[in-house]
Amino acid sequence: MAEALRVGIAGLGTVGASVARVLRDKAAELTRQCGREIVVTAVSARDRSRDRGVDLSGAKWFDDPIELAEKADIDVFVELIGGDEGAARSCVSAALAAGRHVVTANKALLAKHGVALAEVAEKKGVLLNYEAAVAGGIPVIKTMREAMAGNSVNRVFGILNGTCNYILTRMEAEGLTFEACLKDAQRLGYAEADPTFDIEGNDTAHKLAILTSLAFGTRIASDDIYLEGISNITQADIRAAGELGYRIKLLGVAQRTESGIEQRVHPTMVPTASVIAQVHGVTNAVAIETDILGELLLSGPGAGGNATASAVVGDIADIAKSRPGFQHGPVFGRPAKELRPYKKAQMRSHAGGYFIRLTVHDRTGVFAAIAKRMADNDISLESIVQHANGSDGVSEKTVILVTHETTEAAVRKAVDGVTKDGHLTDKPQVIRIERAG
Amino acid sequence: MAEALRVGIAGLGTVGASVARVLRDKAAELTRQCGREIVVTAVSARDRSRDRGVDLSGAKWFDDPIELAEKADIDVFVELIGGDEGAARSCVSAALAAGRHVVTANKALLAKHGVALAEVAEKKGVLLNYEAAVAGGIPVIKTMREAMAGNSVNRVFGILNGTCNYILTRMEAEGLTFEACLKDAQRLGYAEADPTFDIEGNDTAHKLAILTSLAFGTRIASDDIYLEGISNITQADIRAAGELGYRIKLLGVAQRTESGIEQRVHPTMVPTASVIAQVHGVTNAVAIETDILGELLLSGPGAGGNATASAVVGDIADIAKSRPGFQHGPVFGRPAKELRPYKKAQMRSHAGGYFIRLTVHDRTGVFAAIAKRMADNDISLESIVQHANGSDGVSEKTVILVTHETTEAAVRKAVDGVTKDGHLTDKPQVIRIERAG
Repeated sequence: MAEALRVGIAGLGTVGASVARVLRDKAAELTRQCGREIVVTAVSARDRSRDRGVDLSGAKWFDDPIELAEKADIDVFVELIGGDEGAARSCVSAALAAGRHVVTANKALLAKHGVALAEVAEKKGVLLNYEAAVAGGIPVIKTMREAMAGNSVNRVFGILNGTCNYILTRMEAEGLTFEACLKDAQRLGYAEADPTFDIEGNDTAHKLAILTSLAFGTRIASDDIYLEGISNITQADIRAAGELGYRIKLLGVAQRTESGIEQRVHPTMVPTASVIAQVHGVTNAVAIETDILGELLLSGPGAGGNATASAVVGDIADIAKSRPGFQHGPVFGRPAKELRPYKKAQMRSHAGGYFIRLTVHDRTGVFAAIAKRMADNDISLESIVQHANGSDGVSEKTVILVTHETTEAAVRKAVDGVTKDGHLTDKPQVIRIERAG
Repeated sequence: MAEALRVGIAGLGTVGASVARVLRDKAAELTRQCGREIVVTAVSARDRSRDRGVDLSGAKWFDDPIELAEKADIDVFVELIGGDEGAARSCVSAALAAGRHVVTANKALLAKHGVALAEVAEKKGVLLNYEAAVAGGIPVIKTMREAMAGNSVNRVFGILNGTCNYILTRMEAEGLTFEACLKDAQRLGYAEADPTFDIEGNDTAHKLAILTSLAFGTRIASDDIYLEGISNITQADIRAAGELGYRIKLLGVAQRTESGIEQRVHPTMVPTASVIAQVHGVTNAVAIETDILGELLLSGPGAGGNATASAVVGDIADIAKSRPGFQHGPVFGRPAKELRPYKKAQMRSHAGGYFIRLTVHDRTGVFAAIAKRMADNDISLESIVQHANGSDGVSEKTVILVTHETTEAAVRKAVDGVTKDGHLTDKPQVIRIERAG
């Protein structure tokens, strides 16, 4: 049997402790599968004394993760510290420079520095595996990087943030407000004390940026993503969506168009009968559409110590199965130096259907004015729902329009026009509709 | 750059021609991804003259696939002939014996001889890849063999036969009979002239047997599978399922139980709101439940030249990325020699919910008799629906029972009892209910 694979883990939070436990509890089975033992020989974390439910006394302790990365007797460096700069970036760089394989769950780091790190890894002939960085336990990186060789991707989209999906699921199921669901998510540990990063779509954007690179062979462009969070979604939107046969999900979408690649994160209406519409709670899902395979959908746990650990252990096992001198495929599917620049498609040229909810004064001529604004912008309507708000002496109406395929520019112009006409009593709501199988 | 990977393809039907086309059309991209060229240097098929939409004049033609496997200048032998014996078995054996990597889409061959072939491959240090053999373009083999390292599987189940799912989908959507939908499936090329193998569940069983081995580390036992096809499913079942919040799918299920492993293929009621219930038409899906990751679901095209070719090309690309001296993980996840014997759980001890549809004489005491038979066998009922059949002068009633969790033995005994009581006017229908997220 080959020599044991020596693993160093930097960061022993929920995920790191879970990885150490799985490597210990499943040692015999992993050895059988990989043809060699996997042993944790070094660890690093801030607090030496904390009980992590796993005996790490056999591993050498490093107070400094960079020292672990550079000097420990390890073959694989596992980075579970987090953050796009600081210790995480320094120790991953150090490990790669020292010619060690790296496994990381750090989406922020990869979204910002992934290509540069990949160049080092490929130059050094080591692996940089990051299955856990996108959609937790779902093997979407392996699928896109390996299984889809030969496929040209047209679109990849998904539910990439469990916090948002949990909130939207509960809003729909229980008729609660966004704020009430967010509070519950925080209480249950699904959302941070400062939830901005999740609910405004930044976390989804980081993951999407990685998928875009894998899908289209482009350099990661995580700052060039159209971003809209879910904090403006109301019960009125969710109810209207339901009546029209849609469900609202926060999607990250990367799509090839004639003018470039769209990268966008926004609340989206998907058909209630689609598979992705059934992805509830903290579950994640990714759909990939290609020329040869067609449409593939993967769904599963997108976060949590164990699900994330599963992906990390899978990455470590892949390295254990490799042998010295072997180099698996490039980090982002194509050699990092050959990744093409990301050519952004302008959001205003986005083509698709739109849901438009308008709260208007209940007076003669309003609907005609709205219809004219739509027609003037060549927007044809698939359905129109209109109903009075409340009951007693209310002089407001809600008008809901669902458009056939049109462009973002047309919709913005039409809605601006309606706003200028002075008929609205509230901010207009516009939600994009996404085709989904 | 490394030397080109030389590929020989035996069998140039729909899938074989599609593989050759993809390797040609995507040559530049595949080279970028794999770090070396992939070239088809040899082919074999029955008819030399047929136009396959791809120029194969650069490849050496072999009339005998076994000669190709043994003597051609190739690194990878791709078997797309089909069948569990004859040419397919002989040429795969010959290729492995000659120390060549093998890629195959042949589920029947693997279900019958997979372990023996894996032993040869592992002894020779070559790869035997078979992603296309189960669920077409869905990367379920890669997921179970690689991504889930460290996970213990509790249950794997799926829609593994597109023909059956197409028929059931149309029966539900259009209210047609099984026979009418089957005829349409045949007309559209989704079903064979003799459809037995698909509709009676044998095809699903072959694929399930392979998944069982990957899931539980057991030797493939494709002859030891409980089998029930879909030809007995009627509109009455589909309508009743819908009313009760279920949809009927033909599932293959492998499940770890206290007394062994269940392998079963049968029509199954899954909750309408579950993800797998939204898998329509010829699409396939596989759900995998493990201790660490939780539940993962993959859905996508399960058949068709291109989807199958996508999986074959992915397998070839994995080999292209490997280098001499490298050995990836074992063929069925664990070394073939260490696969444990399959220990079968008896079907009579299967535990779960059941849907029971009884057509009975409309006379006093019938329902009491049925209720007594259920109670005598400790079966508690979740719901009961009863309605008269037809309208004029009909003396028949339909009784539909949905049980809480009970056992197969109890249900069989109860239904036998009801039958013996002499109240039934038609064969009783029993459909198992499967938990699904």
